[in-house]
Amino acid sequence: MDINALREAHPDHWQRSTAIRALTLDAVAAANSGHSGMPIGMADVATVLWSKHLKFDAKNPNWHDRDRFILSAGHGSMLIYSLLYLTGDAQITLDEVKNFRQWGSRTAGHPENTHADAIEMTTGPLGQGIAHSVGFAMAEEILRARHGKQVVDHHTYVIAGDGCLMEGVSQEALGIAGRYGLGRLVLFWDNNDITIDGKVSLSDRTDQVARFKASGWHVQEIDGHDPEAIDAAIVAAKKVTDQPSMIACKTHIALGHAAQDTSKGHGALTNADQNADAKAAWGWTTGPFEIPAEIKSWWEEAGSRGAAEREAWETRLAALSERKQAEFNRVMSGDVPKKLSSVIRALKKQNSEAAPKVATRKASEMVLEVVNPVLTETVGGSADLTGSNNTKTGDLGVFDVDNRKGRYVYWGIREHGMASAMNGMSLHGGIRPYGGTFMAFTDYARPAMRLAALQKTPTVFVMTHDSIGLGEDGPTHQPIEHLAISRATPNTLVFRPADLIETAEAWEIAFSQTETPSVLSLTRQNLPTVRTQHKNNNLTAQGAYVLAEAEGKRQAILLATGSEVEIALAARDLLQAEGIGTRVVSMPCWELFEAQDEAYRKRVLPAGPVRVAVEAAARFGWDRWLFGERGREAKAGFVGMEGFGASAPAETLYEKFGITAEGVAAKVKSLL
Amino acid sequence: MDINALREAHPDHWQRSTAIRALTLDAVAAANSGHSGMPIGMADVATVLWSKHLKFDAKNPNWHDRDRFILSAGHGSMLIYSLLYLTGDAQITLDEVKNFRQWGSRTAGHPENTHADAIEMTTGPLGQGIAHSVGFAMAEEILRARHGKQVVDHHTYVIAGDGCLMEGVSQEALGIAGRYGLGRLVLFWDNNDITIDGKVSLSDRTDQVARFKASGWHVQEIDGHDPEAIDAAIVAAKKVTDQPSMIACKTHIALGHAAQDTSKGHGALTNADQNADAKAAWGWTTGPFEIPAEIKSWWEEAGSRGAAEREAWETRLAALSERKQAEFNRVMSGDVPKKLSSVIRALKKQNSEAAPKVATRKASEMVLEVVNPVLTETVGGSADLTGSNNTKTGDLGVFDVDNRKGRYVYWGIREHGMASAMNGMSLHGGIRPYGGTFMAFTDYARPAMRLAALQKTPTVFVMTHDSIGLGEDGPTHQPIEHLAISRATPNTLVFRPADLIETAEAWEIAFSQTETPSVLSLTRQNLPTVRTQHKNNNLTAQGAYVLAEAEGKRQAILLATGSEVEIALAARDLLQAEGIGTRVVSMPCWELFEAQDEAYRKRVLPAGPVRVAVEAAARFGWDRWLFGERGREAKAGFVGMEGFGASAPAETLYEKFGITAEGVAAKVKSLL
Repeated sequence: MDINALREAHPDHWQRSTAIRALTLDAVAAANSGHSGMPIGMADVATVLWSKHLKFDAKNPNWHDRDRFILSAGHGSMLIYSLLYLTGDAQITLDEVKNFRQWGSRTAGHPENTHADAIEMTTGPLGQGIAHSVGFAMAEEILRARHGKQVVDHHTYVIAGDGCLMEGVSQEALGIAGRYGLGRLVLFWDNNDITIDGKVSLSDRTDQVARFKASGWHVQEIDGHDPEAIDAAIVAAKKVTDQPSMIACKTHIALGHAAQDTSKGHGALTNADQNADAKAAWGWTTGPFEIPAEIKSWWEEAGSRGAAEREAWETRLAALSERKQAEFNRVMSGDVPKKLSSVIRALKKQNSEAAPKVATRKASEMVLEVVNPVLTETVGGSADLTGSNNTKTGDLGVFDVDNRKGRYVYWGIREHGMASAMNGMSLHGGIRPYGGTFMAFTDYARPAMRLAALQKTPTVFVMTHDSIGLGEDGPTHQPIEHLAISRATPNTLVFRPADLIETAEAWEIAFSQTETPSVLSLTRQNLPTVRTQHKNNNLTAQGAYVLAEAEGKRQAILLATGSEVEIALAARDLLQAEGIGTRVVSMPCWELFEAQDEAYRKRVLPAGPVRVAVEAAARFGWDRWLFGERGREAKAGFVGMEGFGASAPAETLYEKFGITAEGVAAKVKSLL
Repeated sequence: MDINALREAHPDHWQRSTAIRALTLDAVAAANSGHSGMPIGMADVATVLWSKHLKFDAKNPNWHDRDRFILSAGHGSMLIYSLLYLTGDAQITLDEVKNFRQWGSRTAGHPENTHADAIEMTTGPLGQGIAHSVGFAMAEEILRARHGKQVVDHHTYVIAGDGCLMEGVSQEALGIAGRYGLGRLVLFWDNNDITIDGKVSLSDRTDQVARFKASGWHVQEIDGHDPEAIDAAIVAAKKVTDQPSMIACKTHIALGHAAQDTSKGHGALTNADQNADAKAAWGWTTGPFEIPAEIKSWWEEAGSRGAAEREAWETRLAALSERKQAEFNRVMSGDVPKKLSSVIRALKKQNSEAAPKVATRKASEMVLEVVNPVLTETVGGSADLTGSNNTKTGDLGVFDVDNRKGRYVYWGIREHGMASAMNGMSLHGGIRPYGGTFMAFTDYARPAMRLAALQKTPTVFVMTHDSIGLGEDGPTHQPIEHLAISRATPNTLVFRPADLIETAEAWEIAFSQTETPSVLSLTRQNLPTVRTQHKNNNLTAQGAYVLAEAEGKRQAILLATGSEVEIALAARDLLQAEGIGTRVVSMPCWELFEAQDEAYRKRVLPAGPVRVAVEAAARFGWDRWLFGERGREAKAGFVGMEGFGASAPAETLYEKFGITAEGVAAKVKSLL
């Protein structure tokens, strides 16, 4: 690559883009860690995008109608930190850049949305940016249709590398974006031919252009170092309104550095001599972290480019009717309407009396039937299990190319893509997404579910068929360890409601979250209503509570969740008949119980009696409740699964695996 | 679809393929559950494949040189059960077919490899069959190169549906198969336009033909009900030896049934009248589960087609030198050479004296350097983190189109595809696969890791950078809940070795498994050798053991794994200095400790002393060891992570999160 030719062809552009390169080189060298090559290689694309196209106002990073910029190749975090510092972001200051990758700094190794308002999402796990961006773009389409082009009218731009494109989730994202004609989504592929292990061709020879086209994308191929070509491609991409756009940018990783076009260039370039040589080649003469004033001011001007547009937008917003303004502001803020509580209460009251026997997946549908009309920001969906997950209610309509107001998404057989896109919708704001699959396929969605927790995204994962109660489909479809997987994940609420009442309470809590995702673990099989006495209070919010008190001396406490609460209650009957006073504690949400004060926890789980937990899942994690906070000899047991399930009717499986009232009663007696 | 035209065009073929249709309809109706449409739609393809091409001998399903048949669309399990029963498999009898989806039957809802020898793998979680099949095909290439075409010379055939192709992992598989030119891999796409939620077009409009071509596949499009076209396509696919083949088979789901070409046709067709009508349309006149004798005998002949070929193969095998025969038989049986133990012991002896300070990922490489030469069946690899996972040793060579003997695979950024393909290699036999990524990306590989456990596949997952010790890359890359995730999974050994000695022991155990996968959780950061006194015995095989005994009265027991053992030992020094007798227990493998008898567990963890566990991860699951098997007042604590990590140098993180010797000592004292 002839750097001089590049410099000479567009000298101003070169200097401005090289500000990113220099900051990257300096920050990585100071941290002695990080990824230098990508920001250096993609500086030209980023410069053109941010200075000419990206709609943003650096001083107002939360402006609702900004374009969204997603750095899917999150290891190149110095690209976005450089851009933010240069354009005048108030949070990513020069000090932050100098503290790249240090404790307490906003400039983490990979971009974190919780560290700066202008960082739209947390990236790093490859492919997630692409997959989330689909949700950002869908949210824009939905909100534009719902609230009008005057207040919602923006693009979503993504920078992705070969790693992103090799991850399977990218194919799910490509398919969704292509199917739904997301014309406002523009993806830049940093086509630099390099991965950590070597040339891309070492492990992949996929024709990415053909692949994107196969999924319905508009594709352009350009020289990623030619600012005119970059500009023209973005202009062209924006003109295509019925297809997502991919711009394949041929670039040189670590451009101008000794490590250019090599795997070494992907990582931390810390050799002082080589770095000095690179700067010389770039024609960069100022000291470390020093940006010439005229370049900085040019960038700041780029950062304030959108200010007038934002003001115009505010005027347009103010011109809307008060009702429309209030609704737009409410959904963008994540505030939940007061009516949510009242419809939940009404449903609880009605059904604690009616006491229906329904599967909690069906109960969930009954809840959504009353919630969706009052919570107009919800968008439901399923990964091709709509009839099984019971996620579609009557009034939603189907999101499609010709129905952007549709509130239900057929995600296809793409659990991972769905979960990521839901997070993207949530991060965009204005949407409360929920989506379903089988609980066992938590596995497929895991990387996105973790990111929901890390990003503080209140996505709701509706996971049905949550145990061996799924029956004949067998062990591949029967979750065993999946409750433990979700419970072990920080900042995640895992609900396993026992009946319609707890299901309603769980939904109320899940839809009231602003920083925490929820997993709803729901049954395939019918369950009786166990909460037949109506209470206005949301008992599920306490995490666990006494569902049935012991009669006589309290000798045993049965702890259960979901479908096993019914079994615990029947076991209690057996034990009480033998004079063994037995309390039943329903534990729909461990995390919320853990969050109660110790006094409450001890009231629910006093130290004396034998404790037996019942859950048709792995024991893993239960010892916290079997043995925790006990002052005396602790006798405890577990009735559940010791290995994988099997294929047979559900009732047979419960019996064969010994998860029965008799089994629980016998376990208690063996411990007394 | 004109059924009569199909019947008349190929009357004999029609009757034979309809035997599959009728068995499917009967079995699903009897079970009142299952998936009828796919076997009915793909019966023609399966009939041609199994009767004319698939190399197998029904009476010898374990014949090493058989073709492998993978039903990736595992919900259509009645397809393979029908084929096995019809061709005379000894395990899938008519009684088994009649007991479809019932407790104890071999004919589970989805095919399970542990239920019948002729079932190559467990399918059901969509996309896994495709992704595993890549490993099967790679194993064949490697073994053919290694042992000769006389004894290894077969194909891998896969049937996949739209669900398989929409799952992201399919893209990873396509990329790997295309890159490595797996010419013996032939995939049939059941192109029936239907998913559970509706037409495929509801959620996907990907041009699959273009997509496969983009990844380097040879593609044909045929009428999936035309036996001549099917035959010709298979012949053509087999002629293409340098590219994997995809045959797009246009089919009608539930062909000839009232539910044909509808989503309803995907599921259980149980309406008696409609089923009778379908059989009438098919011209099928015998009663439920009755196969006309001439059809059954034709199928049995197809099943014995390969007998002569198998005998010829046995002659060829017997003609090999004794040494070559013995080696082939050994690797196919999964037997480990005795030399494994001796090289491990020698390495332990040498290093317990030398006591190097190395990261366990580096220790792992040192182990592999001595193991790979004696365990010639290993195939290593990494998902584009070779230099970080330390999975490549000097003598392996790189698997490639022109080097099929290469024992190292550059998998690309495809953790999921790698894990699936490794399972496929293992299931094929003759290969012991291991592969690396970062521990946090366990998430990406989860569905395949679970399937390894369920299928009893001894795959080894090398998961490095296993805690906040990863440092600056930050919370996206720092595992917190991932030890819990793997430990909660049945039939999985999770090793977190504390030093090179335990790492060597872990590898010895992992490579000796025949039915259990292993996860090796390894550090990025250097660790001292803590096992400085050589023992021939493999202490890791006990799961946990006393590493340092208390001096004086034993008041505390510290439990630790991996990188935190060093911290526990330092905490012990602090506590002993204050006269607090402290034992340190290293727990490299919980599962193996759990498998010890109670007496041993109680010797290691006697009831009296305060217990404090130290692990730079979530506490979830630790209460089992903090409170389990204790007769008296149990005081226990945990020093570890309470939420996600952060981006900073590793030492800073350990200090900021309080995972230090001082922190552990303070925790003990607070409990005394």
